[in-house]
Amino acid sequence: MRIAFIGLGQMGAPMARNLLKGGHSLAVFDLVAANVAAAVAAGAQSAASVREAVSRAELVITMLPSSPQVRAVYLGEDGVLAGAAPGVPLVDSSTIDPHTAREVAAAAAAGGNPMADAPVSGGTGGAQAGTLTFMVGATAALFDRIKPVLALMGRNIVHCGPSGTGQTAKICNNLLLGISMIGVAEAMNLGHALGIDPKVLAGVINSSSGRCWSSDTYNPFPGVMADVPAARGYSGGFATHLMAKDLGLATEAARQAKQTVPLGALAQQLYQMASAKGLGGKDFSAIIDLLGSAP
Amino acid sequence: MRIAFIGLGQMGAPMARNLLKGGHSLAVFDLVAANVAAAVAAGAQSAASVREAVSRAELVITMLPSSPQVRAVYLGEDGVLAGAAPGVPLVDSSTIDPHTAREVAAAAAAGGNPMADAPVSGGTGGAQAGTLTFMVGATAALFDRIKPVLALMGRNIVHCGPSGTGQTAKICNNLLLGISMIGVAEAMNLGHALGIDPKVLAGVINSSSGRCWSSDTYNPFPGVMADVPAARGYSGGFATHLMAKDLGLATEAARQAKQTVPLGALAQQLYQMASAKGLGGKDFSAIIDLLGSAP
Amino acid sequence: MRIAFIGLGQMGAPMARNLLKGGHSLAVFDLVAANVAAAVAAGAQSAASVREAVSRAELVITMLPSSPQVRAVYLGEDGVLAGAAPGVPLVDSSTIDPHTAREVAAAAAAGGNPMADAPVSGGTGGAQAGTLTFMVGATAALFDRIKPVLALMGRNIVHCGPSGTGQTAKICNNLLLGISMIGVAEAMNLGHALGIDPKVLAGVINSSSGRCWSSDTYNPFPGVMADVPAARGYSGGFATHLMAKDLGLATEAARQAKQTVPLGALAQQLYQMASAKGLGGKDFSAIIDLLGSAP
Amino acid sequence: MRIAFIGLGQMGAPMARNLLKGGHSLAVFDLVAANVAAAVAAGAQSAASVREAVSRAELVITMLPSSPQVRAVYLGEDGVLAGAAPGVPLVDSSTIDPHTAREVAAAAAAGGNPMADAPVSGGTGGAQAGTLTFMVGATAALFDRIKPVLALMGRNIVHCGPSGTGQTAKICNNLLLGISMIGVAEAMNLGHALGIDPKVLAGVINSSSGRCWSSDTYNPFPGVMADVPAARGYSGGFATHLMAKDLGLATEAARQAKQTVPLGALAQQLYQMASAKGLGGKDFSAIIDLLGSAP
Repeated sequence: MRIAFIGLGQMGAPMARNLLKGGHSLAVFDLVAANVAAAVAAGAQSAASVREAVSRAELVITMLPSSPQVRAVYLGEDGVLAGAAPGVPLVDSSTIDPHTAREVAAAAAAGGNPMADAPVSGGTGGAQAGTLTFMVGATAALFDRIKPVLALMGRNIVHCGPSGTGQTAKICNNLLLGISMIGVAEAMNLGHALGIDPKVLAGVINSSSGRCWSSDTYNPFPGVMADVPAARGYSGGFATHLMAKDLGLATEAARQAKQTVPLGALAQQLYQMASAKGLGGKDFSAIIDLLGSAP
Repeated sequence: MRIAFIGLGQMGAPMARNLLKGGHSLAVFDLVAANVAAAVAAGAQSAASVREAVSRAELVITMLPSSPQVRAVYLGEDGVLAGAAPGVPLVDSSTIDPHTAREVAAAAAAGGNPMADAPVSGGTGGAQAGTLTFMVGATAALFDRIKPVLALMGRNIVHCGPSGTGQTAKICNNLLLGISMIGVAEAMNLGHALGIDPKVLAGVINSSSGRCWSSDTYNPFPGVMADVPAARGYSGGFATHLMAKDLGLATEAARQAKQTVPLGALAQQLYQMASAKGLGGKDFSAIIDLLGSAP
Repeated sequence: MRIAFIGLGQMGAPMARNLLKGGHSLAVFDLVAANVAAAVAAGAQSAASVREAVSRAELVITMLPSSPQVRAVYLGEDGVLAGAAPGVPLVDSSTIDPHTAREVAAAAAAGGNPMADAPVSGGTGGAQAGTLTFMVGATAALFDRIKPVLALMGRNIVHCGPSGTGQTAKICNNLLLGISMIGVAEAMNLGHALGIDPKVLAGVINSSSGRCWSSDTYNPFPGVMADVPAARGYSGGFATHLMAKDLGLATEAARQAKQTVPLGALAQQLYQMASAKGLGGKDFSAIIDLLGSAP
Repeated sequence: MRIAFIGLGQMGAPMARNLLKGGHSLAVFDLVAANVAAAVAAGAQSAASVREAVSRAELVITMLPSSPQVRAVYLGEDGVLAGAAPGVPLVDSSTIDPHTAREVAAAAAAGGNPMADAPVSGGTGGAQAGTLTFMVGATAALFDRIKPVLALMGRNIVHCGPSGTGQTAKICNNLLLGISMIGVAEAMNLGHALGIDPKVLAGVINSSSGRCWSSDTYNPFPGVMADVPAARGYSGGFATHLMAKDLGLATEAARQAKQTVPLGALAQQLYQMASAKGLGGKDFSAIIDLLGSAP
C-alpha cells in the first residue's frame, strides 16, 4: 500500500520503519531534513510538502507534537485535506485534546476522508519494537480497515468508540497514571522516612490494595527495582514536561466538560513545578525528588 | 494455647472465632456486653477486665478502634501491661499511628513483654474467611513465635521490620489506595463525560499504565464491574470515614516526619468532605459521587 | 460622539445607558431582541448587524461573555474589523484570556484600528451606578483617548500597560480573590467548629495579618456582616460558576506560561465542584457551604 | 507585682524586658543559661527551676515553643501547677493547639489556678516594641485581671472568649495568612510572566477585591515594596518552617473537628516542601521562590 507518513520524530521515525519492514511504500515529510534523510535511507521516498506526500497515498498517518501542529498539517493551505484524494483514510497518532481531534475529523469527513484518532502508549521502546498500544477513535468500518496497518507498529489495537474516544482514553489513562505515580512517591517516601525498608514496603503494596503499575512495574524509589528510570538517575522514559502537558490536556478537557478533577489538577501543578525546578527532561518518576526524602 | 483477646468488634469478633476454631483457649474482653456474649457462645471465656483477661494468658491480642483506646488498654491502671506475666508476647492488630505503636511497644519491652504491631488488611470479609493480610512490626524472633497463631486468621503474614513498621506499611498502603481511588474516579468520570463507554475505558486502563487495584478489582464507576460496592449503591466495603481516618494518620505521620504528601493531604480533605456530605458510612469508592457526573 | 455598543447583557445594558446619559449617540447590537428594545427605549439606535452598528461609529465598545464570542464579533465576516472605519478605536470590556485579547488586538492593528482590552470589576451594581473599575491594556495614547468615555461608566480607570495587561490584571486579581474567599471560609468554619464567636474571629482577623477583602468587606459566614450575600442566602453578587470560569482563565493562562498556581488550580476545582452540586448560580461566597459546618 | 516568666527565647526575652520596664519584679527560668543571664542583667531574678520561679509569684507567664513543652512546664513534677500558690493566675502565650490549651487550663482550674491562653502576633519586632496583639481565651474576670500586665507588652489585647479561643483565633488567622500569601505569590508570578509590571499589578489588586495584608503590607514579589522581607532576600520576618508548624496545628485541629480545609492542607504541604528545599529559615513570603518565576 502507498502510505504517507508525516512527522518523523522520536516516535514517528521507528513507526515509519516498521511500516517499511511490513512491505509498504512510504512517502514521508518532516520539517527536519535529517529526519527525512534517515527515513529515505531506510527506504522511504521524500516529499517536498505535506500536500505532495499525501497526494498519491492510499492511507495517511501523522505523528505530531501537539494540537496546533495537527491543525496546521491537516487544515493548512497545503495540508492533508487539501491534498488527499477523496475516500483515503487518515490516521492521526498524535496525543492531542479530544475536542480538536473531533473538529479535524469532522472537517476531514466533510471533504470525504474518513479519519481516526489513534494515539499510542508504550514510548520510544514500544515504537521501536512494534509493541505499541493504539487507542483508536473511529467508526467500526474504518477501524477494521486500518487495523492491519496499525498492527505492524503495535501489539494491542483497541477500538475505543467513535471519533475522539481514542484521545479520551489516552488522556484519561495518563490522568490516572500521573496521579498514581505521585501517590507511590508519597507512600514510598513516607515509609522510608518512618524506617521501613523500601523493598519490603513495595512488596506489601504490590500484594495489597495499593498495587498499581507505578508501584509494581515502574517504582520511582531508587533501589527498589532494576531496569526502571529510578535505577539510572531518571534518564530515559517519559519526560516530566510531557506528563505536565498530558495532564494539562486532561484538566483542560475536564474544565470544558465541567468535570471535577482535583487530584489531576494538583498533579498537573506538581509536574509543572518539577519542570520549573529543572526536572522537566527527566522521566516523570523523578517527581519523587520534588516531594522529598529519596536518598 | 491460652490467648487473651481484647476488642470484639466487626473485625475482632470473627478473628477470635477463627482462633477458637484453631483449638486455642480464649479469655475475652469488650466494653459491649453483646459482643462478649457472642464470643462466649462460640466457646470463649469472659473476663471482668482487661487485667483479668490477660492475667493467665500465654499470648495477648488486641483489636481496637484507634490510638487513645490502645494507650488506655495497654497503659491503663488495670491494663495489659499491669496484668500480663513477664515474657508473654503482645500483638496489637489495631490500625494506629506508628509513633504510638512504638511508644507502647517500648513500654511493654520495659516491663519484659515483647510486643508486635500487626495491623491487617482484607476487611470484615477477610476476617471471617481467615484470609487477612497481617503487616507485622516485630523482632524476627517474635515474628516467628506469633506467626502460627496469626496464620489461623490470615493468609498472608508479612514481616515488615522492627516495631512500628507494620503500622507504617498499613498507612503507606492506604495512603496510596486513597489517592488511587480518587484518581480512578476522576478518570472514569472524565471519560464518561467525554463520551467513551466506561467499560471500554476501564479495559484500556487495566491493560495500560493506569492499571491499579482501584480500577481492575474495585472500580468505582457503576456498571463497570459486578460484586463491588459500586454495583450495590456503595454499601458494604471500607467506609469513607475510615479512609478519612487512615489518611489522617498518614498525613499526621508525614507532618511529624517532615515529609511532603500533597496528594495524600488533598485526598484526606476530599474523603472528609464526602463524610460531611453524608457519604461517611458508604464504601470509600463512593467518593466518585462527590466529584461529579457518575450516573 | 457616535459610539457602537455590542453586547447588552446584565453588564452591557447599564453601561450603555450611562453612555447615553453622558450625551453620546449609541448604535447598539445584541442577539437578544428584548435587550435591544430596552436600549432603544433608553435612546439608542438599533443596528441590524455588528457591521452596521460599527460602520459609522467613532468608537466601538464590546461587552461579551467569553473568548469565542469576542473572536466571532471582531473577526467574523460581518464583524467589527470588517465594518469599522480605519483609525476608529476599539474597546473590549469582556473578561477573556490575555492571549486572545492580544491576538484580536493585533488583527485590529493590522487593519488600522487601535484596540484596548478593558475588563471591569464592580459587578452589576457598579455597572448601574457608573462606579466600575476599568483595567486597561493599551498604548498610552489610546488610553488617554478613551479614558473620558470610560469615566462615564466607571470611577477608577487604570492603565495597566500594553495590550493584554488589562485582562492579565483582571484574572490575576480574581485568581487571588477566589483563593482568599476559600481561605476565609476555611478559617471561619474552623473557628466556629472550635467554639469561637464568628464575629469576634472576624474582628481579630480584620485587625491582623489575615485581613482581606473577603473577610472585612464580603465575609462569607452568615451573621458576621449585613448587606453581603451571606446575609441573604448568597443571592446576588458574583456567581460561583463565573468564578469557576475566571479561575479557569487564570489556570489556563498559567499553564501556557508554564507558571505554577497550585492553590488557584485547587480553588478552580472547588468552585467547579460547588457548581456541580447546585451552587453555581449563588454568589461565590457560598463556597463555604461546600466546605462544611456553616450554620 | 511579682511575676514568674518562663521561656526567654526570641519572643520571651523582649516581652520580659518590657515587664521589667513596667516596674514589675520578675523571677525567670529558661533552659539556656545565656538567656537567663541576659534577663538577670536587665533586672530579673534567676530561679533554679520552674517550680522555684513560680513559688512566690502573683502571676505566671509562659512563652514556649510548642505543645509538648507546655505540657511539661505546666504538668511536670516540678512544674507550674506543682509550684504555684492557689488562686495565682497563669497566662500561656505560646502558640499551641486549642485542645492542649483547654486540657492544661482544666488541670490548672482543678488545682485552683485560673488560666488564660494568650498567644500573640506581631513577631520579634512587636515583642521588642511592646506592640504585640494578644488573643486571649479566658473568663471575663481573668481577662480583666491580666489585661493591664499584657498591655505592657502589647498594644491590642483582645478577649476572644473562653479557654482555648485565644489559640483558636491565632491558628485561624494564620491559616488564612498562609493561604493568602501563596495566593498573592501565584497572582504576582502569573502577572509578571504575562507581562504586566508587578508594581502596577499590586496597585490594581490593592484597590480591588484581591486586596489583603499579604499584598498591601507584605508583598512577596521583589521590588514591589520596601522594608519587607522580599526587599532583603527574605531574611527576618516569620520563618517558613514556623508557618508550616502553624498550618500543621490548624489542619490537625480541623481533622479532629471534622472540618474541611483543602487550601489550608495544601498550603501546609507547600510550606513543608519549601522547608525541605532549604527555605525553612527564610521568611514565609519566600514561598514565591518555590512556585516559580520571581526574578
